[in-house]
Amino acid sequence: MREVKTTFVVDSSKSPYAKLLPVPVENVRLEDSFWVPRQRILREVTLPSQHKLLEDTGRVFNFRRASGKERGDFKGLFFNDSDVYKWVEAVAFVLATAFDKDLHDGAKQVVLDIVASQDEDGYLNSYFTFERKKDRWTNLRDMHELYCAGHLAQAAIALFRATRDRNLLYAACRVADHIASIFGSQKRLGTPGHPEIEMALVELYRTTGNGAYLDLARFLIDERGKGLIGGGIVHIDHKPFRQLSTVDGHAVRSLYLNAGATDVYLETGDKSLWATLLRLWHNMTERRMYLTGGVGARHVGEAFGEDYELPNVTAYAETCAAIANVMWNWRMLLATGEARFADTMETALYNGVLSGISLDGREYFYVNPLADRGKRRRQAWFPCACCPPNIARLLASLSGYVYSLSNEGIWVNLYTQSTANLEVWGNSVVLVQRTDYPWNGEVEIILQPQMETAFSIFLRIPGWCRSAQVQVNEKAIAENGQPGTYLEVRRVWRPGDRLQLSFAMPVERVFCQPLVMENADRVALKRGPLVYCAEQVDNADCDVWDLVLPYDCQLESRWKSDLLNGVVVISGDALAAGTELGEQLYRVATDAPPKMHRVSFTAVPYYAWANREPGPMIVWIRSTTCPLNG
Amino acid sequence: MREVKTTFVVDSSKSPYAKLLPVPVENVRLEDSFWVPRQRILREVTLPSQHKLLEDTGRVFNFRRASGKERGDFKGLFFNDSDVYKWVEAVAFVLATAFDKDLHDGAKQVVLDIVASQDEDGYLNSYFTFERKKDRWTNLRDMHELYCAGHLAQAAIALFRATRDRNLLYAACRVADHIASIFGSQKRLGTPGHPEIEMALVELYRTTGNGAYLDLARFLIDERGKGLIGGGIVHIDHKPFRQLSTVDGHAVRSLYLNAGATDVYLETGDKSLWATLLRLWHNMTERRMYLTGGVGARHVGEAFGEDYELPNVTAYAETCAAIANVMWNWRMLLATGEARFADTMETALYNGVLSGISLDGREYFYVNPLADRGKRRRQAWFPCACCPPNIARLLASLSGYVYSLSNEGIWVNLYTQSTANLEVWGNSVVLVQRTDYPWNGEVEIILQPQMETAFSIFLRIPGWCRSAQVQVNEKAIAENGQPGTYLEVRRVWRPGDRLQLSFAMPVERVFCQPLVMENADRVALKRGPLVYCAEQVDNADCDVWDLVLPYDCQLESRWKSDLLNGVVVISGDALAAGTELGEQLYRVATDAPPKMHRVSFTAVPYYAWANREPGPMIVWIRSTTCPLNG
Repeated sequence: MREVKTTFVVDSSKSPYAKLLPVPVENVRLEDSFWVPRQRILREVTLPSQHKLLEDTGRVFNFRRASGKERGDFKGLFFNDSDVYKWVEAVAFVLATAFDKDLHDGAKQVVLDIVASQDEDGYLNSYFTFERKKDRWTNLRDMHELYCAGHLAQAAIALFRATRDRNLLYAACRVADHIASIFGSQKRLGTPGHPEIEMALVELYRTTGNGAYLDLARFLIDERGKGLIGGGIVHIDHKPFRQLSTVDGHAVRSLYLNAGATDVYLETGDKSLWATLLRLWHNMTERRMYLTGGVGARHVGEAFGEDYELPNVTAYAETCAAIANVMWNWRMLLATGEARFADTMETALYNGVLSGISLDGREYFYVNPLADRGKRRRQAWFPCACCPPNIARLLASLSGYVYSLSNEGIWVNLYTQSTANLEVWGNSVVLVQRTDYPWNGEVEIILQPQMETAFSIFLRIPGWCRSAQVQVNEKAIAENGQPGTYLEVRRVWRPGDRLQLSFAMPVERVFCQPLVMENADRVALKRGPLVYCAEQVDNADCDVWDLVLPYDCQLESRWKSDLLNGVVVISGDALAAGTELGEQLYRVATDAPPKMHRVSFTAVPYYAWANREPGPMIVWIRSTTCPLNG
Repeated sequence: MREVKTTFVVDSSKSPYAKLLPVPVENVRLEDSFWVPRQRILREVTLPSQHKLLEDTGRVFNFRRASGKERGDFKGLFFNDSDVYKWVEAVAFVLATAFDKDLHDGAKQVVLDIVASQDEDGYLNSYFTFERKKDRWTNLRDMHELYCAGHLAQAAIALFRATRDRNLLYAACRVADHIASIFGSQKRLGTPGHPEIEMALVELYRTTGNGAYLDLARFLIDERGKGLIGGGIVHIDHKPFRQLSTVDGHAVRSLYLNAGATDVYLETGDKSLWATLLRLWHNMTERRMYLTGGVGARHVGEAFGEDYELPNVTAYAETCAAIANVMWNWRMLLATGEARFADTMETALYNGVLSGISLDGREYFYVNPLADRGKRRRQAWFPCACCPPNIARLLASLSGYVYSLSNEGIWVNLYTQSTANLEVWGNSVVLVQRTDYPWNGEVEIILQPQMETAFSIFLRIPGWCRSAQVQVNEKAIAENGQPGTYLEVRRVWRPGDRLQLSFAMPVERVFCQPLVMENADRVALKRGPLVYCAEQVDNADCDVWDLVLPYDCQLESRWKSDLLNGVVVISGDALAAGTELGEQLYRVATDAPPKMHRVSFTAVPYYAWANREPGPMIVWIRSTTCPLNG
């Protein structure tokens, strides 16, 4: 193997235009009852089963075939390499925090198969081998070569950070060098039909210090929308990036592009990029995002719809798009330290992303509707299997999102029981979070700085919270936090200092902008960061689509340890519309008001839907301004 | 020109499996204030302007080019011949009832251009000439040759009936003979990607008595769904016709196919065809049809959606699809004499079809949403201009839908002021209808039989009507009509006998099956056959999307002669939801019930929307079971 002369940097969190810097996943140990069981299932069930599926479907074979180790036809879709890379990345994040021999050995072998398939010139893609070599780089719009190269680099970086294994990283750099030798402003022009490599190149730049990678990322963004690849709106190639004002086209591509552009901003401070990113963020969150943080309303083109086009039953809301939403908002948070981005990230994470995987870790939703008649069920795999390993890598890396650091101190982004080892100005600080979040809003944070030090703790006061109280060592602090901001608590921190946060977490009814026609006169139920839904299996009194919540109905929440691996359910009395029309589509109203009868109902967290028997499900429940006891 | 040895029959209404037989357009003279002004505008504005557009866009030039009269490239889309044919057909219907020199001469010249472009072997299609001759009949799925041939035949038949001019009919028969010489069970197999020719071939069979045309129509239906042309669901080629149980795919193709299959049934009595047609009709009317009679929920593929997928803003509901709905239901009515088909036809005609053309006859909707924010406006023409001449030929032939005949007597399908010359058992009967329908439900029918004769008058009691009274010569008849049926009045009719019908026509509130999520807890307003909508221009008190109708609100109707060429408006007091959210997409509800304030509102017939200044429009208005004065 050819040696690449590069010094690799494990801590690459020095982006000059980042307000916040990330904390490595291994520095935070989750100890909660919400995510830890998910990560255990991920390690014990999901990742081993995905490994088997990657083998069984020929995805790893394709690499062995490319290197000449095995013979036969290429199997599956031309971009299936990327599924392998995402799996390796997920395994790397797992290995960063806990050694797992089977996953380690499995990934090691897979990496050997990948690396062995690399060409002399650095090219690596198992599809474009043998008779297809001549077709390399001939169709940037459709063939996902740059996309796969990006996922390779991300896997390589994660694996290097977790295990210090440089094998895959060498390969990834050689791929990137190969690409940089072909594409560039003084070389061949082009841009990928499916953005993703932009993020990877910036991270490779952070890891290697090689400015050519950053230049290439910037180049690929700058060249979009110039007609170079014949792309359209689906590829977000219909106009130059800086001219965009609405999120359009393929939702995953759109948000991967935005995430990559944010990465470039973090390194370059390019103001016109930033202005574009803010415009797009406003458009998405104010007009084109589901309550769950899911995005991409349309099945056709897996695309964003028009403003306020957010249908429930026919929602696409691909799991990968919610993941991309987390990735983008994470980077916007790093750029600004503004809590609105953390809020959006949290919303997507607990709802639109988490609904993508079954409680047993074996099945996945590609599409995440907000209402259903019992037809949609998760599946064990897909021919285009982008979502399963994507959700795996996000769940595996979750501990990296909990805290950030800045020159001023420590930022608490997410609340979850955990122990973190952080470093503030060379001073080691252990942070212990004790909480049952997301089931209640009481959080205790105990600080153990190595030495007494003055610095700030920035506490995210969640946007969903209407009343937050913060105490330091049992004393309320003067200024309580404004929801949707970070509350700065600056003082000299001593070992054993305790922050006590209390976020009121009542059941909330949420209204939607009535320009979303389907949601006018409906309410959704939320509690803390969780969006709820009514599933038929919990509701014997009426079809959940006929549930009508009067504005004054009492909504109770209650912990049920035996349900759906333990959830807080919401229940109450409501009405049921007597609108049973049978086979009639339209019916002339009689003069009497429609009959309603009183029913009890139960709602469960949206992320947990479709884990029991199939039946109607609904997030946006009909409502009435009439009182229940009218 | 080669002579075709065929006797043409003007009265071709002898289908053996038809319960009802049609009445020629020229036998009914409309004299009402609703359709007559439309037909006048059609004659004076629409058809002349379409003629100019057909010339200006090269559609007629293409024929002259094909015959060698002119030189240049083919202009426009490959199926543009069909627009010319539909225009000729519309002109023919006009000429059947009233001579118009300009239209007559214009059509005559166009017909000469068409006929001159026919090849020796009978082939006629201006696109597949010169260098494209070799491509004839090579792509039945996409290239619309059979579709265009069908429209040619329909135009030819209409022109022959109106003017006895055989020129175009000879050409159409030669085209059909040419097709029959190529395709058939013992020849080449195939079926069109866009059905339409099936209807035309059956009518050509009725006109010529040549069974080969009927055989060919049947063949083209029987060969569908066998994988012959590589079509999919969009072409309704995904399974054999008799295995269909839901209307799917391209809505116009689907309903043209159903109409053609109904025509074949009318001639053959094929029971399996009939069973399929009934299944499809139930699926469409009970799960996939807009309140307006519009169909085809999806922009993508111009297609039917799933059951209950009937979005309002993103509705496609192509004008041509509503026209196809009229055409199919008309044939189902002829097959059965069942009023439900006439009801559906009437609904589509007065709403989903008529909204397709502006009041001034100059602009057209291709897409007919049921809610809008002021963006959609009619246009003068389209590159794919199927709708404008299609609506023209339907409006021009309208008088043919008013009555039908059977062995028992006369069937009154539509109510409109008019004078008809009918023949019952060789006895001439003049029927004079006096009514302001659709503005009120009082209808007087005066019979003038040449001789006293015993026969039945079948009066359609509209399905929208909850109370109908019928009198003969001022005496109530024992059995009043059941809505949604034909009431048979059998007696010896004497000159001057008078039928007086009174259909109560209050403003009705209509509920939708709540499985259409967007319409749950909304009401639509109807009066008689007309669907209403609230347009912003009439409603100063609040955004019409915020209108909330309490169940007990009083709804008044009032004739306004100065509005929209004269309409009955609906008005009343209602509430406005105070849900102004500004830029916020989601908002947590406060504990107080949302504020509502009292407003006045006005609704106008849906067909007339978008004829004034742009603004929000809505058919399905929000409603509440709370009382207005609660």
